[in-house]
Amino acid sequence: MNNKPTLHTSFSPSLINLYDVSNSIVVIIDVLRATSTIATALYNGAKFVIPVDSVSRCIELGKQISAITAGERDGKVAPGLEYGNSPFEYPREFIENKTLVLTTTNGTRLLQMVLEKGANEIITGSFPNLSAVCNHLIKKKKNVILGCAAWKDRVNIEDSLFAGAVIANVKDHFNINCDSSTASEILYNNAKDNLFGFMHTNNASHYHRLMNYGLEKDIRYCLTSDGANVLPEYEDGKLFVR
Amino acid sequence: MNNKPTLHTSFSPSLINLYDVSNSIVVIIDVLRATSTIATALYNGAKFVIPVDSVSRCIELGKQISAITAGERDGKVAPGLEYGNSPFEYPREFIENKTLVLTTTNGTRLLQMVLEKGANEIITGSFPNLSAVCNHLIKKKKNVILGCAAWKDRVNIEDSLFAGAVIANVKDHFNINCDSSTASEILYNNAKDNLFGFMHTNNASHYHRLMNYGLEKDIRYCLTSDGANVLPEYEDGKLFVR
Repeated sequence: MNNKPTLHTSFSPSLINLYDVSNSIVVIIDVLRATSTIATALYNGAKFVIPVDSVSRCIELGKQISAITAGERDGKVAPGLEYGNSPFEYPREFIENKTLVLTTTNGTRLLQMVLEKGANEIITGSFPNLSAVCNHLIKKKKNVILGCAAWKDRVNIEDSLFAGAVIANVKDHFNINCDSSTASEILYNNAKDNLFGFMHTNNASHYHRLMNYGLEKDIRYCLTSDGANVLPEYEDGKLFVR
Repeated sequence: MNNKPTLHTSFSPSLINLYDVSNSIVVIIDVLRATSTIATALYNGAKFVIPVDSVSRCIELGKQISAITAGERDGKVAPGLEYGNSPFEYPREFIENKTLVLTTTNGTRLLQMVLEKGANEIITGSFPNLSAVCNHLIKKKKNVILGCAAWKDRVNIEDSLFAGAVIANVKDHFNINCDSSTASEILYNNAKDNLFGFMHTNNASHYHRLMNYGLEKDIRYCLTSDGANVLPEYEDGKLFVR
């Protein structure tokens, strides 16, 4: 063996308790679309993105700190909120120097879970900020847990693909003895030449959900690397870029 | 849509509660080696295989019904038991007309979990009885849950590969809207030309554990289709072939 740090992949919030999050960098992955939108808003100059777990908390906090509130339920802006989950709603001219309070279900829940388990180094990952995530993980030389937010605890293809993309880029720097990581990388290698086509051909469940909402443009953007290449770090309830 | 039944794959006992086991055929999958050994013992004429969750329960029940007791811990026959987990320990001349009480950890635990959740149609699956499982699922026209026993709740490659093999064979007969199933089939399609080589090349964690115990022959057998092509069905605490 060698002194490389370890890397594990958790396919679902239901599996995260199998891993030692307190001693690792945890990457929260919610490709369609929470973590892609977080990267985009921060890339475009948002001061903070504050993830919250409910619409009511989003409304309350938005009022309290005069922030923009955003979140969707069933593909529409949730009643009481101002904006949705699309990365295209947050161009620089709109979001620069502002704070966005964003309610998401799967991603925020996983974030809360790892916080409760003692995680103290949390970042968010998505294809739009793939390189920033990989570079950070390589530089830090710490154990890593790639935490897929999944869909209501069910494993999804797109978060697994992103885990695989990270692994394909960083694997020489880690000891990886984790079948979920292996499976993710194989999936990614099958898909990498055309991620959108792969999601379509393989009938990915969330792909279909979003296509039915007319969100093909969002999906294509969320599957494209480095369009918003910043590193969102979580501290004291907020995501921001150092 | 059409009237085909559904098929879902659960990668780990930690995920099984996401699926409606009470209304489905549940396939318990523990490729290395529990369900491969179960198929083999029954194929070779064992009357019953009784899976139990502890060594002490195995000893107790073995005495009570004068059955053969078997189980391993850390690659060796567990103290107090007579035989191990290898399918090669159960040739016809030894096991015919006998009852085997087998203690396994991952597979038995998943079986108990689905029983508690109301499952009433449970079979076991492994490469040695792949065709028997597929034919049964096609014939029954019921919803199916492929339940991977995994390794201490962590997803493993070999159980996922078997799920993929089943899906590749039965998919025309089911509605499959399940990303875990999709991922399993893709993995299987990558691996099918040489399952053993795939496990080796991709550093599958349980493959290495067993190779370190000198069990290459077991692994090769457990990755070969239809060497013990029977259908183990579970009823009243016992597995048997009708």
